[in-house]
Amino acid sequence: MYNFTFHNPTKVHFGKDQIKQLAHEIPSDAKILVTYGGGSIKRNGVYDQIAAALIGHSFWEFGGIEPNPTYATLMKALPIIEEHEIDYILAVGGGSVVDGSKYIAAAACYKGEDPWDILAGSGQITQALPLGVVLTLPATGSESNAAAVVTRDQDKLSFVSPHVHPTFAVLDPLTTLTLSERQIGNGVVDAFVHIMEQYLTYPVNAMVQDAFAESLLKILISEGPKALANPQDYDVRANLMWCATVALNGLLGAGVPQDWSTHMIGHELTALHGIDHARTLAIVLPAVMKVRKEQKQEKLLQYAENVWGITDGDADRKIDDAISNTEAFFKQMQMPIRLADVDLGPDSVDAFVAQLEAHGMRKLSERRDMGLNVSRQVLEAALA
Amino acid sequence: MYNFTFHNPTKVHFGKDQIKQLAHEIPSDAKILVTYGGGSIKRNGVYDQIAAALIGHSFWEFGGIEPNPTYATLMKALPIIEEHEIDYILAVGGGSVVDGSKYIAAAACYKGEDPWDILAGSGQITQALPLGVVLTLPATGSESNAAAVVTRDQDKLSFVSPHVHPTFAVLDPLTTLTLSERQIGNGVVDAFVHIMEQYLTYPVNAMVQDAFAESLLKILISEGPKALANPQDYDVRANLMWCATVALNGLLGAGVPQDWSTHMIGHELTALHGIDHARTLAIVLPAVMKVRKEQKQEKLLQYAENVWGITDGDADRKIDDAISNTEAFFKQMQMPIRLADVDLGPDSVDAFVAQLEAHGMRKLSERRDMGLNVSRQVLEAALA
Repeated sequence: MYNFTFHNPTKVHFGKDQIKQLAHEIPSDAKILVTYGGGSIKRNGVYDQIAAALIGHSFWEFGGIEPNPTYATLMKALPIIEEHEIDYILAVGGGSVVDGSKYIAAAACYKGEDPWDILAGSGQITQALPLGVVLTLPATGSESNAAAVVTRDQDKLSFVSPHVHPTFAVLDPLTTLTLSERQIGNGVVDAFVHIMEQYLTYPVNAMVQDAFAESLLKILISEGPKALANPQDYDVRANLMWCATVALNGLLGAGVPQDWSTHMIGHELTALHGIDHARTLAIVLPAVMKVRKEQKQEKLLQYAENVWGITDGDADRKIDDAISNTEAFFKQMQMPIRLADVDLGPDSVDAFVAQLEAHGMRKLSERRDMGLNVSRQVLEAALA
Repeated sequence: MYNFTFHNPTKVHFGKDQIKQLAHEIPSDAKILVTYGGGSIKRNGVYDQIAAALIGHSFWEFGGIEPNPTYATLMKALPIIEEHEIDYILAVGGGSVVDGSKYIAAAACYKGEDPWDILAGSGQITQALPLGVVLTLPATGSESNAAAVVTRDQDKLSFVSPHVHPTFAVLDPLTTLTLSERQIGNGVVDAFVHIMEQYLTYPVNAMVQDAFAESLLKILISEGPKALANPQDYDVRANLMWCATVALNGLLGAGVPQDWSTHMIGHELTALHGIDHARTLAIVLPAVMKVRKEQKQEKLLQYAENVWGITDGDADRKIDDAISNTEAFFKQMQMPIRLADVDLGPDSVDAFVAQLEAHGMRKLSERRDMGLNVSRQVLEAALA
């Protein structure tokens, strides 16, 4: 096991009707900006619960944060924060709303010229407004970690800062019962690939981390399809919701190598073609598994045996079966698994590689040995 | 899954030579009291590492905190704190030192007449000195939770307060290489039973918590004996150390029923006869499993199948085999598993039951249905 520092100060309130905890978590004299996305919270009762919990608090609203939140949209929150002297952000939604709200919380306190510099890498976050979360779409884990992804034009970039680690997060599985099949599939596969990025590398004898990763993968595999088949089953949603949070709260990645090449390549698919984040992961991961079979052999075998229970055949056969099973699972979750499934052909590859180059992604993977030529091989393996 | 709140703000620095992190974690103007136990840290190099990390800091020392730390000993720290205006506690040792230091941190700020009231239940903790930990014996999980156990005469009592949740904990597996076989065995079995108290209850479909508990139990079963056989294996110690911390950092117990009857009964064995805490657990748990077989049947069966991989026989047979395996594992860790093994006979039982009654332990277990008569049955089942 590698040395690590693990620190996750987010307080999680999990379960039915936990939104009422807002009243205790946010100081009564706070001036709150409630941030949200397309407005589904006003139709499904979540907004009403929040308004009821915040009686006696002062709050304003900022809606319209889109999936893959954009700089242009998020920057519109800053004048509202300035005008009303907002000192607390309450993000209500899924990972995009939470990520966007992290950017808003940091940008509101940023002293430099343009807060985009935070994402471009030249700007430092030294403070941020405190941030609470009401999560309505389990997927990204952003509700209890320090990372965020924001898009400007064709740049989809990320930042990490302890200053934007949410103070608290309310996770009520009841709020997830109205998600669409597409949102369910995206959420399950997003969490799945988060785990794989921290697990499918090379072994360092980190037994707790490996066993926890395998546990969560197996739960997603068993419960994901149930959420599609029985969308009103509370227990299924509760287990998926907690799974997705723990998948990226720092516990699995502590003391182990991490990959994230699937994410980096996937981000370019979203940036250039607007493909849902999780769907890009479902397309890229199987190709990474195939192209990086040699480098990841030990962990691929462990994955085959421990997650899929594959016992027949030699190592090569087991690994191939595990990759096939992964693809079948993604398809079961109604995901595309090839570029062809989202109507992209061989002519799309050059642009992705150029984007990776422009974003400094010349050395991806846990070994930093995955150059642009290997990323090209991955994209080609993902074609059809 | 039940509703829960999970909040663990302790920052963990894990790995080789992490003691140097002290320099960054403790404010440079703090007046620190370094608390420790019998003084092994002065012989094994840990004290020297701490002194080196704290160059430039002001610190005083308070040694002599014993296993099952006593009120009488701990109260002696208070005049030192007052005299030197101590404002930071750094606990260096195992669970007893950490627990004792939590009591010191709270007692130093206690406004009532006698801080024992914190344990007796009539005193409230409203503040405590900040507490950091350098852990040298993985076992209790106290380094990243809010609980502590303190003994006065024949009263071994516990308290829980977020104010004593350690700010940070340094876990360097190298510091554990000099532990005795007895300390290794105690640590592994203590962690094992912590997990069982949160797992061996009744199912509430909490898949993450169950799978994590089973993962940790299997790691303790495989790695515990290796620590005895190959005491210089860093990886073995690292996995055990992280296991013991995660075993009681709140993650496994979130959203599930919890038992703790083995601990409550075990505490009386320590209070009356000075038996090592973990050894009392190794004696009591198998008896609890036998006496509470009916109430715990579903989880016992799950334990048999998922932790021990038992597939043969009917439910009853599987459970009996799992209990036998548990006992064999404890024996392999050089533990007593019966009262007879620590030279106690049937005449000891009345006094334990009287102690439980005196301490208000009339309704133990996850169902609060375990009266004094059932605790007596457990003690009788533990005799020989």
